[in-house]
Amino acid sequence: MVVTLIQQKCNGSIGENRERSLEAIKRAEGELIILPELHQTPYFCKSEDPQFFQFAENFEEDLKFWKEVSRERKKVIVVSLFEKSLPGVYYNTAIVLDRGRVAGFYRKTHIPDDPGFYEKFYFTPGERIDPIETSLGRLGVLVCWDQWYPEPARIMGLKGAEILIYPTAIGWLECPQERRDPLCEKENTPEERKKMLEAWIAVQRGHAVANGIPVVAVNRVGFEPDPSQCLGGITFWGNSFAFGAQGEELTRGGEGEEVLNVEIDLKKGEEVRKIWPFYRDRRIDLYSPLLHRELTSHSLWSRIKEEK
Amino acid sequence: MVVTLIQQKCNGSIGENRERSLEAIKRAEGELIILPELHQTPYFCKSEDPQFFQFAENFEEDLKFWKEVSRERKKVIVVSLFEKSLPGVYYNTAIVLDRGRVAGFYRKTHIPDDPGFYEKFYFTPGERIDPIETSLGRLGVLVCWDQWYPEPARIMGLKGAEILIYPTAIGWLECPQERRDPLCEKENTPEERKKMLEAWIAVQRGHAVANGIPVVAVNRVGFEPDPSQCLGGITFWGNSFAFGAQGEELTRGGEGEEVLNVEIDLKKGEEVRKIWPFYRDRRIDLYSPLLHRELTSHSLWSRIKEEK
Repeated sequence: MVVTLIQQKCNGSIGENRERSLEAIKRAEGELIILPELHQTPYFCKSEDPQFFQFAENFEEDLKFWKEVSRERKKVIVVSLFEKSLPGVYYNTAIVLDRGRVAGFYRKTHIPDDPGFYEKFYFTPGERIDPIETSLGRLGVLVCWDQWYPEPARIMGLKGAEILIYPTAIGWLECPQERRDPLCEKENTPEERKKMLEAWIAVQRGHAVANGIPVVAVNRVGFEPDPSQCLGGITFWGNSFAFGAQGEELTRGGEGEEVLNVEIDLKKGEEVRKIWPFYRDRRIDLYSPLLHRELTSHSLWSRIKEEK
Repeated sequence: MVVTLIQQKCNGSIGENRERSLEAIKRAEGELIILPELHQTPYFCKSEDPQFFQFAENFEEDLKFWKEVSRERKKVIVVSLFEKSLPGVYYNTAIVLDRGRVAGFYRKTHIPDDPGFYEKFYFTPGERIDPIETSLGRLGVLVCWDQWYPEPARIMGLKGAEILIYPTAIGWLECPQERRDPLCEKENTPEERKKMLEAWIAVQRGHAVANGIPVVAVNRVGFEPDPSQCLGGITFWGNSFAFGAQGEELTRGGEGEEVLNVEIDLKKGEEVRKIWPFYRDRRIDLYSPLLHRELTSHSLWSRIKEEK
């Protein structure tokens, strides 16, 4: 199966951003097309501003628009939209459209909050981790911050996902020019930037190996200023990639706009797992600590109590 | 802190193998020294033969020997021994010796079984995943096959481990010369061998990133024949390595014997986790599927029942 990763800028109006996506979709060779996280709008989580909830107001119309694109192009398309569900309840939602049909959706479950990525203000955490059945296979769609976690990747695998897909919006923070921000400067030397990018790739490549499953991440690119002017903005680092079921690199983008077409064999994972049978040997009797935040605070509190 | 990885051949008698280790320990600059998996003996799991349980008979004496080495050298040493616990109950056990004191032990919990690595015949699976307190810090010692699993790495992290340590014995299967073995040949082309090695490194590097914790793996090297002559033997691939808490490469060995001294900052992980706070955002309310083998068989059996 050919998969197309659309690595694009999303720093214009909704109309302009859609136009960029449509232009790329025309050139896409894949049966499965993946757009970056929240591709209709600039990445608005660079600051906390209630006006940006407006981007979720037209969710149903947005969905209808992309459904039509999927129908016309006869493609399976993974889109990523800001969803208003109830007043005060908004989700960061990926939707899989299968030739004009809504095959399923996934609401981002792990929500970040660090300088320039203030997502906890905007996004209610999703409450389900399930693969989505499509005419092309069972897609394990997760979103951005999820990609740093072995748990959702594993859960998707245990539930039969045949590929992991991460629409994402990740990049380097630009430090404010008006005033010094020591934390920002410390975190954004060229060496630290290289480490971040490599770590981002490494952890997802690890999911491919640990689960015998291909992994695809699709990132946005380009600089976007911070409208609040507290931060210097973010340069999204691109580098969208695909790794195969043994963790072998299949494709990798640069830092500019790109349409990456890549052949991915969804059935190879099954062969890999026959000779690397990691799932067989999982020690489910020993994994209950994974359902806890940490397992050291008890002894800390014992010590504190003893000290009285 | 300087850590020394002793990458050595272990294909001689117990005396010879100990001599190699001692020679390397003399040259070790580290306060913490790590030996490969089951370093006292050839890797006997290449076939299933009850005579090899003899290697576990002198466990207490073996332990005493290494305790003395640790005391004399005033070092923390991670050794890996075949442990007889009860008749019919044998463990693949790593022991941490802290300047002459047994600081703790870890019995391998994930046990492989694939051509040339018939460990399920020899090793009873361990029943605890706990870090070991030492004078140098809290060591998350795991063993070989464990390294492919995100779960034990995560559990060690949640329990406060400051470094993950994997003594290991991994390599490429050599195909029998007497008769064709199509599976063996298919799995051992130069491209497949490269993929295996890279996957092995990638998945562990992923543990470093996902947990903000340094990871060290120490492998044996050299060719060892299969005494049963069913297989051609194993060439252990070396490539012992250390990654830092952001997944940055700190050292990597080649395919020959080596004493690798590497500076590892056990406190850096705490700084990394302040800006990459993955532990904070874990969705423990969604992780119960991790306690199951898989979550698709139910629907399979529903279908089968419906078909009656």
